[in-house]
Amino acid sequence: MEAKYCWVDLSDQTHFSIYNLPFGIFSVGNNTKRVGIAIGDKIVDLAVVSAMDLFKDLEISDAVFNSNYLNDFIHLGKDITNKVRIQVQDWLCDVDSPLKDHDHILVDQNQATLHLPLKIGDYTDFYSSLEHATNVGMMFRGKDKALLPNWKHLPVGYHGRSSSIVESGVPIHRPSGQVVPKDGNGPVFKASSRLDFELEMALVVGKENRLGQPVSINQAEQHIFGMVLFNDWSARDIQKWEYVPLGPFLGKSFASSISPWVVTMEALEPFRTNGPAQDPIVLSYLDFQGAANFDINLEVSISTEDQPESMICKSNFKYMYWSMAQQLTHHTSNGCNISIGDLMASGTISGPDPTSYGSMLELTWGGSKPITLSSGHQRTFIEDYDIVTMRGWSEKDGKKVGFGEVQTKILPTLHE
Amino acid sequence: MEAKYCWVDLSDQTHFSIYNLPFGIFSVGNNTKRVGIAIGDKIVDLAVVSAMDLFKDLEISDAVFNSNYLNDFIHLGKDITNKVRIQVQDWLCDVDSPLKDHDHILVDQNQATLHLPLKIGDYTDFYSSLEHATNVGMMFRGKDKALLPNWKHLPVGYHGRSSSIVESGVPIHRPSGQVVPKDGNGPVFKASSRLDFELEMALVVGKENRLGQPVSINQAEQHIFGMVLFNDWSARDIQKWEYVPLGPFLGKSFASSISPWVVTMEALEPFRTNGPAQDPIVLSYLDFQGAANFDINLEVSISTEDQPESMICKSNFKYMYWSMAQQLTHHTSNGCNISIGDLMASGTISGPDPTSYGSMLELTWGGSKPITLSSGHQRTFIEDYDIVTMRGWSEKDGKKVGFGEVQTKILPTLHE
Repeated sequence: MEAKYCWVDLSDQTHFSIYNLPFGIFSVGNNTKRVGIAIGDKIVDLAVVSAMDLFKDLEISDAVFNSNYLNDFIHLGKDITNKVRIQVQDWLCDVDSPLKDHDHILVDQNQATLHLPLKIGDYTDFYSSLEHATNVGMMFRGKDKALLPNWKHLPVGYHGRSSSIVESGVPIHRPSGQVVPKDGNGPVFKASSRLDFELEMALVVGKENRLGQPVSINQAEQHIFGMVLFNDWSARDIQKWEYVPLGPFLGKSFASSISPWVVTMEALEPFRTNGPAQDPIVLSYLDFQGAANFDINLEVSISTEDQPESMICKSNFKYMYWSMAQQLTHHTSNGCNISIGDLMASGTISGPDPTSYGSMLELTWGGSKPITLSSGHQRTFIEDYDIVTMRGWSEKDGKKVGFGEVQTKILPTLHE
Repeated sequence: MEAKYCWVDLSDQTHFSIYNLPFGIFSVGNNTKRVGIAIGDKIVDLAVVSAMDLFKDLEISDAVFNSNYLNDFIHLGKDITNKVRIQVQDWLCDVDSPLKDHDHILVDQNQATLHLPLKIGDYTDFYSSLEHATNVGMMFRGKDKALLPNWKHLPVGYHGRSSSIVESGVPIHRPSGQVVPKDGNGPVFKASSRLDFELEMALVVGKENRLGQPVSINQAEQHIFGMVLFNDWSARDIQKWEYVPLGPFLGKSFASSISPWVVTMEALEPFRTNGPAQDPIVLSYLDFQGAANFDINLEVSISTEDQPESMICKSNFKYMYWSMAQQLTHHTSNGCNISIGDLMASGTISGPDPTSYGSMLELTWGGSKPITLSSGHQRTFIEDYDIVTMRGWSEKDGKKVGFGEVQTKILPTLHE
């Protein structure tokens, strides 16, 4: 990447550098929601830019930027959306830029409210980290059955709940549900005592396919608009009792949390890297030529209202055994149609080192090895009023492209 | 029910009697989609009725009836939607009715196109027939593990794919996918050779709850607008290989088919009946007082372009072990929010008798006992160009309330 000078003040540490320029939905005060681009601690208000006719060459309707969701914008196609991003990048590097002509084009992030950026039709959760699948399999089914026979042949996944996906900052109530205490007297209905996060990332579908028409592995990346951080909240005690034989349901569907800025695949392109070798060799419909993974540093921390953050996990998206292209191609291989705004989450991103495990279940090995926070308090699972924060960023040659954070506070259950 | 005289010509056998009046979305020629009510072989065009100001007392905007989906109409609430239905019923029984004043109010069904009636946010599939769960469990896991320990304690379910739900009449391509041949050489990618239907019904969510706020068992039925027939297409060979440990995915997500008319719970009320006794007693949050099931006759037939229908299954919705109220309450018991237009399908509705089994998997016992059609041809699973038709209706004291049909032709795979 060529070094670029931007006239907006940028900290060296900002996730939202001139090389990033992610898209999101924001509002200020009582104004309507609109599309913005993050730059440093500012937001470029694209509704204002569009109203100034600055996108007239691209023939984009103002309504696309005055929208509650990014879906209509994404629907324009990568060719157009990337032109918008590059145009804004050029303006932010041009000291004579028209963006300087209007007071309301640059908004302070701390004066704006960020909203759920997407109207999510369907959400799929994969299970694509070898280390995570092995760890959880050992705890749920024992060492002999940890990795099931299909796991290295296809990216195992399941349909998740779309309605309960919320943006960073929205607090979540601890779920209640059926759990089986160790006393052997059968299930009871109570608040989950094994509430967990899962460190994941999700791809945002940017292009549809028709029902019955698979997307080939060579075309798969054309259907990915960008990515977000994804916290797949999980209640391990509910999940363990309910999940046979049809998979996770209420142990997951109470909430998932995503970061508000969608980082484009174009911004992530410089951080492409090889994934783990796949052995056995995959079937030809899943055979991707080239580097399919992305080097994205990931961190999870826990804090409380009166205690600072304790970092409890450092992982990396590059550890994924199955790539996003393989996930998307597999997903459509039966003819399933995908829609703009759909999310496909990675599954928990655990690496080889125990400090890289992406869930409390793994970090505390099923609750048997408590973590000590910097405050001295211990945690096996997540407690009421805990705040869980995930961050992710790529960095190379001093250039940083980040996702910001997804931060969620847990509140007590409303129903027990 | 009091006997009612309707001035529209009605066959004794019509599913769409004066006691039914289901809602759907239709269009005629190049006209826009709108909301209609089925009566006999006609449709009452509610957009025209509304334009004539006949609903002015109910203060419903014309736009609600000039819509691509029923969601906005359902959003008015049961109080209003049922007033609309009763008002139309009164008009259809009144020989001096204002509906007679306008040529375009009554449309011939055979001149109209019926569309997907709902914008479906999330779709959940339950597994609530004891007979089906036992039959499939025996085939997938053996007799000892057929019914897993959780099954009688909670309505087991999983999230399904919303995007691939289509209306009756839309043909489906046979899916391809990873299957494991018996030669022991590992998975191959090929067209499914065990394509199956599942005879199900689905409830349509009519009222939302807030994230974190469960719906109690006493309130559950207030959140159900109505029901449709639901064919949960399944590729048994894909499903068998992929489904551990996270449940069905591509073996189901290539398509589901629904009937176009949504029959309201008010029309089904006279057919309420007791479900099977539940033993062990359910936990209190699932304890429903009163008759929770509905007596709805169900039939499945197979035909081809040159062969007439052969009926292969007769079942009844009353066999469900878990009721819709229990499904909905369980679904929200962790705080999961449900949305207007969501579907919750029952799972395959198999009864005690082998002729009542609701899938080819059960009817042919895993393909080991072929069915002979009236044409003399045999079937173990569904073949290309087969047409599968499901019908459902309630009947009591000579009064009939039916769902019409969901009919689907299978086309060859597009990708092998």
